[in-house]
Amino acid sequence: MKRVNFDSLYSFHKSVLSHAGLDDETCEAVSFGLCETSLRGVDSHGIRLLPHYVKSALTGRKNPRPNYQFDRVFPAFGCLDADNTYGHAAGMKAIDLAIPLSKQYGICAIAVKNSSHPGAMASFALRAARQGYIAFAFTHADALVCSHGGRRAYFGTNPICVAAPREEEEPFCLDMAPTFIPWNKLLMYRERGEDLPEPYAADDIGEPTNDSAMARSLMPIGGYKGYGIAAMVEVLCGVLTGMAFGRAIPGMYSSPMEQPRRLGQFYMVLRSDVCLSQHEFVRRMQEMTDEVRREPARDDQQVKLPNDPQIEIARTRRQEGIPVDNYLYQELRKLSQDFNVPIEF
Amino acid sequence: MKRVNFDSLYSFHKSVLSHAGLDDETCEAVSFGLCETSLRGVDSHGIRLLPHYVKSALTGRKNPRPNYQFDRVFPAFGCLDADNTYGHAAGMKAIDLAIPLSKQYGICAIAVKNSSHPGAMASFALRAARQGYIAFAFTHADALVCSHGGRRAYFGTNPICVAAPREEEEPFCLDMAPTFIPWNKLLMYRERGEDLPEPYAADDIGEPTNDSAMARSLMPIGGYKGYGIAAMVEVLCGVLTGMAFGRAIPGMYSSPMEQPRRLGQFYMVLRSDVCLSQHEFVRRMQEMTDEVRREPARDDQQVKLPNDPQIEIARTRRQEGIPVDNYLYQELRKLSQDFNVPIEF
Repeated sequence: MKRVNFDSLYSFHKSVLSHAGLDDETCEAVSFGLCETSLRGVDSHGIRLLPHYVKSALTGRKNPRPNYQFDRVFPAFGCLDADNTYGHAAGMKAIDLAIPLSKQYGICAIAVKNSSHPGAMASFALRAARQGYIAFAFTHADALVCSHGGRRAYFGTNPICVAAPREEEEPFCLDMAPTFIPWNKLLMYRERGEDLPEPYAADDIGEPTNDSAMARSLMPIGGYKGYGIAAMVEVLCGVLTGMAFGRAIPGMYSSPMEQPRRLGQFYMVLRSDVCLSQHEFVRRMQEMTDEVRREPARDDQQVKLPNDPQIEIARTRRQEGIPVDNYLYQELRKLSQDFNVPIEF
Repeated sequence: MKRVNFDSLYSFHKSVLSHAGLDDETCEAVSFGLCETSLRGVDSHGIRLLPHYVKSALTGRKNPRPNYQFDRVFPAFGCLDADNTYGHAAGMKAIDLAIPLSKQYGICAIAVKNSSHPGAMASFALRAARQGYIAFAFTHADALVCSHGGRRAYFGTNPICVAAPREEEEPFCLDMAPTFIPWNKLLMYRERGEDLPEPYAADDIGEPTNDSAMARSLMPIGGYKGYGIAAMVEVLCGVLTGMAFGRAIPGMYSSPMEQPRRLGQFYMVLRSDVCLSQHEFVRRMQEMTDEVRREPARDDQQVKLPNDPQIEIARTRRQEGIPVDNYLYQELRKLSQDFNVPIEF
């Protein structure tokens, strides 16, 4: 296990993706998204995806040089055709389009079509929140949430994400899928031949199970509630955008690599100074944050807000480096050789 | 147990609340909200609240004749001061203000301040969805969600609600609190001296428990996720609106009845025809709905979407009447006598 500093990883990503054919804007969005996500400790959606994303460009699944079309259908609500590029680039583009509209109108929404897997939605919501805006970010994904009362999955592990600025540098941010664990984590248990600690998955007849080998889908949090959150996101990202929805969404790993996934995303960006000044909003956000962190905790820990663990990990990894395990390191070395890009770690 | 038809209950509510001093608009909003919520089977937020709401007018907690101030700070985002009226009336007003703005700008948001308990948020989201709009509705509530890793509650059982139109008459609608059960349900178990079926509550040190007598707060769904949803709603309804937040929110039953609760609400209303036509959107919503209902179910039931159970109950209760138990009936009779309003059931 190596530890590599953010800047080295980021510049390696940019070099590799640039050699894979990505234009500057796309290259920067994907590289920053992956590296920042790993910096924040969300390893499932971070740098381990680089080899897959490189392959996506080479096979034609993702368009490395997109020609975006933004159709501003209404003053504060438009549709962004992402020309089958990387989800990261489409999300960054959507936020950058949304901010001036939100500034002018108070709120705006952008529906993204013909996009792909965008990694962690926090990348986009945080981008807006760091500029002083409240932001919602949604994407859909292939069917993996066991339907409430059903035998199999219809909706994907569709995440919801919201971020809001406060006095301290890093915003409040909630970024969550509506299942107890991500599918990647289940696969990790399965590879190790281990059971899940709780029945977080469902078997082939929809029965909750902790047997990772028997798992065919994931149990939603709170029964119909998590399942309902997945449905809500599908309405915005699949039904409204004109993309496929439900079981018709092509799988990330199971569908042909030359086939664009044509996924949707959905963003809403808001000003925070509608009832109070922006100054007063961020002051009150900080007050809430400080109050929560002072709440009495169980077992001498600290009560945290969503994003607090990621902020702590990012602080540590900024100093000590981002862990790169041996398997991933070999993959990165292979990319280094394939593209004749030096690997300086 | 009596069964009373919707129209009789609705006109009784209107008469009582009108005699309690509510102006026509407020009276109609509260009466319709309570009766429709009971029609839909959400008894915890329906007609059983009438006696409490009458008391609210008489004691001065709620303003029966509000003078709303709508400050349209930005073209598509405004702040509605509800003058301490009923939450139902404030919510209906917000939706009615939001629809023309959303029609013009594509999306709009309305933050409501100086409001009170609004009952079921579906009342408001459905009102917009029945007119062809997608709507989000949020409110906050007094601290009852055990903080993740904490010993007590900081955030309330803050619900999220979203609705969207489809071909069939009743919209898609998800209306959920981020806990397994509502506090009212816990109190029902406690009154009967029964344990909860699962450890849905937390005791006085934050330990999950199914002992209803020992419960001091409710466990959030999915650990930090449900807790994070409660936090998200608090940002929008409490922090942004300038109202109290977290543990400073006065309790619905525990705070003095002459004290306005000064709660916030938050609404976002969107057009659905940004990437596709409205016709195509509702057709696809119906397609998703039909597909989900045909999904293979466990134990010969049917896979449902959120709102399907409420639609079914409403259909039955529309024919067979809304159940009024003996305790509630005696309370309604008392209101009938107090205000000299005939009770025709």
